[in-house]
Amino acid sequence: MTSEPWVGQPLPRPDGPAKATGRAHYIHDLTRPGMLYGKIKFSEHAHARIIRIDTSKAEALPGVRAVITGFNTPEIRFGFLRDNFALKADKVRQFRDEIAAVAAIDPDIAAEAISLIEVEYEPLPAVFDTDAAMAEGAILIHDKDARGRPVANNRMPLEYHHRSGDLEAGHRDAKWVHEATYSTPLIQQSCLGTAGCIAEFDPSGNVTLWAKTQIPFLAQKDFNRALKDMGLKGRNSRVIVPALGGAFGSGLDTHAYEYISILLAYTAGRPVKILYDREEEFACLSPRQSATTHVRQGIDSNGRLTFREVHVLQDNGAYGSWGATFPSVMLLPATSLYRVPNVRFDADLIYTNNTYCQAMRGYGNPEVTWAIESSIDELAEISGLDRLELRRINCNVPNEVSPMGLNITSCGLRECIDRAALNVGWTDKKAPNIKRGVGIASLIHVGGSGRIYRSDASGLTLKLDDFGNIYVASGGVEMGQGLHAALTASVCDSVGVRPEQVHIVQTDTSTCPWDVGTHASRGAFVACNAAIEAAAKLREQIFAHTRELFPEDTADGELELRDGVVFVVDGTWKMDLARLARAIHFRAGGTMLNSAAFYDPPTDLPDWNKGIGNMSATYAFGAQSAEVEVDTDTGDIKIIRMASIYDVGRVLNPVTLAGQCYGGLAQGVGYTLYEEIRTDKGRMLNPSFTDYKIPTIHEMDFPVVLAFVGTKDDFGPHGAKGVGEPGLVPTAPAIANAVYDAIGVRIRDLPITPEKVIAALREAGRD
Amino acid sequence: MTSEPWVGQPLPRPDGPAKATGRAHYIHDLTRPGMLYGKIKFSEHAHARIIRIDTSKAEALPGVRAVITGFNTPEIRFGFLRDNFALKADKVRQFRDEIAAVAAIDPDIAAEAISLIEVEYEPLPAVFDTDAAMAEGAILIHDKDARGRPVANNRMPLEYHHRSGDLEAGHRDAKWVHEATYSTPLIQQSCLGTAGCIAEFDPSGNVTLWAKTQIPFLAQKDFNRALKDMGLKGRNSRVIVPALGGAFGSGLDTHAYEYISILLAYTAGRPVKILYDREEEFACLSPRQSATTHVRQGIDSNGRLTFREVHVLQDNGAYGSWGATFPSVMLLPATSLYRVPNVRFDADLIYTNNTYCQAMRGYGNPEVTWAIESSIDELAEISGLDRLELRRINCNVPNEVSPMGLNITSCGLRECIDRAALNVGWTDKKAPNIKRGVGIASLIHVGGSGRIYRSDASGLTLKLDDFGNIYVASGGVEMGQGLHAALTASVCDSVGVRPEQVHIVQTDTSTCPWDVGTHASRGAFVACNAAIEAAAKLREQIFAHTRELFPEDTADGELELRDGVVFVVDGTWKMDLARLARAIHFRAGGTMLNSAAFYDPPTDLPDWNKGIGNMSATYAFGAQSAEVEVDTDTGDIKIIRMASIYDVGRVLNPVTLAGQCYGGLAQGVGYTLYEEIRTDKGRMLNPSFTDYKIPTIHEMDFPVVLAFVGTKDDFGPHGAKGVGEPGLVPTAPAIANAVYDAIGVRIRDLPITPEKVIAALREAGRD
Repeated sequence: MTSEPWVGQPLPRPDGPAKATGRAHYIHDLTRPGMLYGKIKFSEHAHARIIRIDTSKAEALPGVRAVITGFNTPEIRFGFLRDNFALKADKVRQFRDEIAAVAAIDPDIAAEAISLIEVEYEPLPAVFDTDAAMAEGAILIHDKDARGRPVANNRMPLEYHHRSGDLEAGHRDAKWVHEATYSTPLIQQSCLGTAGCIAEFDPSGNVTLWAKTQIPFLAQKDFNRALKDMGLKGRNSRVIVPALGGAFGSGLDTHAYEYISILLAYTAGRPVKILYDREEEFACLSPRQSATTHVRQGIDSNGRLTFREVHVLQDNGAYGSWGATFPSVMLLPATSLYRVPNVRFDADLIYTNNTYCQAMRGYGNPEVTWAIESSIDELAEISGLDRLELRRINCNVPNEVSPMGLNITSCGLRECIDRAALNVGWTDKKAPNIKRGVGIASLIHVGGSGRIYRSDASGLTLKLDDFGNIYVASGGVEMGQGLHAALTASVCDSVGVRPEQVHIVQTDTSTCPWDVGTHASRGAFVACNAAIEAAAKLREQIFAHTRELFPEDTADGELELRDGVVFVVDGTWKMDLARLARAIHFRAGGTMLNSAAFYDPPTDLPDWNKGIGNMSATYAFGAQSAEVEVDTDTGDIKIIRMASIYDVGRVLNPVTLAGQCYGGLAQGVGYTLYEEIRTDKGRMLNPSFTDYKIPTIHEMDFPVVLAFVGTKDDFGPHGAKGVGEPGLVPTAPAIANAVYDAIGVRIRDLPITPEKVIAALREAGRD
Repeated sequence: MTSEPWVGQPLPRPDGPAKATGRAHYIHDLTRPGMLYGKIKFSEHAHARIIRIDTSKAEALPGVRAVITGFNTPEIRFGFLRDNFALKADKVRQFRDEIAAVAAIDPDIAAEAISLIEVEYEPLPAVFDTDAAMAEGAILIHDKDARGRPVANNRMPLEYHHRSGDLEAGHRDAKWVHEATYSTPLIQQSCLGTAGCIAEFDPSGNVTLWAKTQIPFLAQKDFNRALKDMGLKGRNSRVIVPALGGAFGSGLDTHAYEYISILLAYTAGRPVKILYDREEEFACLSPRQSATTHVRQGIDSNGRLTFREVHVLQDNGAYGSWGATFPSVMLLPATSLYRVPNVRFDADLIYTNNTYCQAMRGYGNPEVTWAIESSIDELAEISGLDRLELRRINCNVPNEVSPMGLNITSCGLRECIDRAALNVGWTDKKAPNIKRGVGIASLIHVGGSGRIYRSDASGLTLKLDDFGNIYVASGGVEMGQGLHAALTASVCDSVGVRPEQVHIVQTDTSTCPWDVGTHASRGAFVACNAAIEAAAKLREQIFAHTRELFPEDTADGELELRDGVVFVVDGTWKMDLARLARAIHFRAGGTMLNSAAFYDPPTDLPDWNKGIGNMSATYAFGAQSAEVEVDTDTGDIKIIRMASIYDVGRVLNPVTLAGQCYGGLAQGVGYTLYEEIRTDKGRMLNPSFTDYKIPTIHEMDFPVVLAFVGTKDDFGPHGAKGVGEPGLVPTAPAIANAVYDAIGVRIRDLPITPEKVIAALREAGRD
């Protein structure tokens, strides 16, 4: 008998059957007694003063129960920088700015009422690219930040810098230097479940939100602040999380529609549901930022990196979200992907009149890894060094401290690189047919949570009932990634029960313990660590009661609990946990057992001005490689095969892990080749899956070798590291490097479309 | 500053505003995505074999999703004696027996489908009174009990007996002996919210019940057993309790309709709701048992009780419920109301083909107090002793142990009697106008829980959040009695916060700790005791962290927490609890605080064959008095005024306490004068509030003096005793005694209707 019979097994997801059979309840499925349907009126200008809003026709429509604007409701500021408003009263700063909203007895009436609202604007000059926004004399989108400080040149009040080592020395020591600029587009998180919420007040002024969120407890904080803004100081919000149809970072912030639901529910005195349709999901929710990354790095005659300079220019659109803090994670690859002694990193975060942006899986890492890993290949070419060898020379190693101060404990990167290369038929020689090529790229990512808040903790409680069931209340959010499967296996092995005995209760701020949120690939890492701690406490109680109740049977033996049976290890005595729980309960002075843990990983909140701090308890590594075929007539890129080799520590569940990795890879392929939100002066041009291309089974119809190198992390629960995001981090440079290998032209702005390939071939004279 | 600023204050009920404004969600208000509506086909015979059930027409009706009978579903046995079946396959034993059920897409289709089900019966001889049922040769309603033992003479397999002292000596010492038989009718709990539930399966075979129950955790046990019967062994049920529109004992059992919902939901693969209409609530749910109580007791020349013999004959109808255990509480007044040295108690519990019965507020106590307190007046009359003086002579006193072994700690009964008498203008002389009279009666009841199960415990957890809110998860059920108000005040004072900081989470077996159920006037007693214990643990943590975080500020001082502020008692330092919670949380090694308690009162589970055992941690006492006017032409009884004086220990909340007492009194008045379910051969004749009379504001339009004598119980939380049931216990004898005082005739069978008064006056020759 192994001591961990469930961890590592392909345990079916506990949330899987309900989702597969249509019985899971997404926000789309939920109603509340007396519920109204809310709808929002969005701005039709990218930048304009609001002169007048006439809601009289909407108010007169039968079935309408509330019509609100920024003029008849309290001002609610929100957002990471508190620069956004639930309803805009003075001016709009982007298409989709929320101007007014209605609640009605059905969705059609709500939509009709919205169409009856008349808004008069005074258009203002607008800026749609970062250069124009930063130019002297450019119109200011925000005059002042939330603290009343002026916003110069549309620069957001956020600073991210890093200096380490001796850059001058790094320059001196470099024999070859490469410098280039790489860009990534606006893309959508493309959740199959669109955004929505229900807000319901109790008569005391406390509000409950059924919210599509990754951060129920930070959302509670935001909503409590909104209640205060509404004159309900001291009143409380409760956040309940239904089944999520994907989030990918879009649930990391609270949203205007949530505050509008709150305002509508308060005004109407009834629960209000707002549900975005697909077009609203595209056009009125925040996509991933576009970014321009300038990288300059050099190697010495031995191929060792001597310095690296990275500068990121990020277009955040009209407002700041948690996504504006992407540079906090961009610092990881910039400073710590490969061993580089002298590093500079700076980020400029710019307001424009484009749609404001938010987080997405990978959180800045893909953008910068795209630049660095493309540049590594270019360095190899100009130096004449082998691309793989250059990576091997500079490979991260275990037990190093990176320039950022990342304490890299376990690291299987070198093995990842070698195996990734092997699995796409890597050869030092270029393929004889120039149209085929191979490429590779590596990744480093947080693998042991990522501290971006004052607490990086996750609470968890366990409750044992009379039937041997264990109720697990965790603050973490299952958003499709397999958290509940990982947690179930961890609880099974940590406590010693079978999967069917584990019941994970719904995420709810009133009944679950605090957790900072599900992001940074941290869900399983922190929840399982908390489970292990809580389980140890529960087992201690179980064994103590067992010895007290059955002193003679258990006097000399070591006690163990496995698969729901408590037993003496020598086999002389055993009892079903359910029966034991009842024996502990049903007696004079009886009790029932529960335990709690609050796991805060041993990490530092970095100083972002210095870009130094060990933000994660451990780090995930990996490499992806691709073999591609390029049609030089059409510019089409066909992926022949790929390999994804990761060091994510111990594998908790091979099936859900594969799901995470394949899903990430598909998103990475989309980012690399297809996905891009097109805008015209701030207006989105392709708000639908018809015009916005994500990979389908046809695009993903190539073999993928997925493998894991066998590190076991000391900090990781059962040895595991976090794995939510890495799957898409190195995909773009791996493919771009393969394209270069195939056809000798390099595309530095994503996505790598056929048009760009053809244009590059023409420019290089190879068409 | 008092150390308990909230306990004892007229704190508004936290559940009040939602209920008053229509925002509370009763089972009537709830829906689930994809939910179907269930409806039951009830028996049209009191006793018959089922020959054939034809469901083909129902199955063919469009919109019908499931049709089930006892023939196409697994047998589910349930009930306290496991003598009942979710659906009856062999025979029906009462009108209302469940024969078949359907689930359909709307309630009308379900009703139509039910009307299309054809049932062929073979009628059997039936018995409708206990004498006929016990007669030799009577048809047996159950051949065997659940353990396969024969059921002789339709006697239920339940024994309740008591013998104490020396009855022979008691008889010898008696100078005056009185003996008579008193009866009480079938009455309805008359919940304004009718019965209902929703059952929903997950794909793994676990079921969630939204159930109108007082015993969520015992219900979970019952439902888990049903799942096992259905072949789903090891699967789990979850019970969530919505707002309850009254329960009064009707939620103490699980019901056939709940199992039928489970079967329908399992069969249809969709959630199923069953909701009783008012006629079903009357005719198809179980009322309070009728009982016939024979009492014989004697007093010596000094008026001291020398013995008492009580025999109860209880018609339980066709099946056994928890209500069949009424004698467990009948033992209290029989053995322990007034000091009586030599006692005999026996109960016969009989099956008949009447509707089967269940628990109701007071749980057997009103039935027996009715007999004893009427008999006391009759004893006074035959002995020539003053009625009040006789009671004073025999009054219970503190620190006595009664013949049942009840350890009576605090007891303010004598003061209750005196003040009750005083407040209805008591006089030793009969009122000059013979039509007016006064009466009094006393009560003893469990006041510190009442152990009727292997555990009498109540679990509770407290969770402190970053905003200073305390989340209280209790296993107890708020069913209108004010539990949440009591618990809020207790948490406020035990922790040291303000009421708006206290949030009581919804009762749910998956998130709340175990509790045996809300009955026996135990809710506030056990929950507040658990709260006090959990609060002490929480405060200990808060103060320890405070001293660690602010060593210099708190070094020398005693720490206190009141109204959400932690402070040094000498006034040198203070901090808001919310801010402190964040300071404890947001730091290296930070944590969030929670605590748990599992309070099991120090009581004994009596041996029911001996009727001995201290079943409650303390006992409530009280006396009610009435002045009545009787119209000897019409027999109408008009209550002029009443007084209710109770010893319930410390008053937790005067407003909710008054609500409990007035509500109980109104039910007592209904029991005494109006309420009676009329049946004809087992068929209910008056299943509506039109034909079943409960008191309204018109009947209750008389002054009531309500007062409390100031004991403070050592075991009680904050000194309080339980008070849920006493309000209706002595009402009937107090009024009957007043009627006798007024007109000289005694009615011994409830209700005391005008017809009975006129008949008695005629018989006595006083008409």
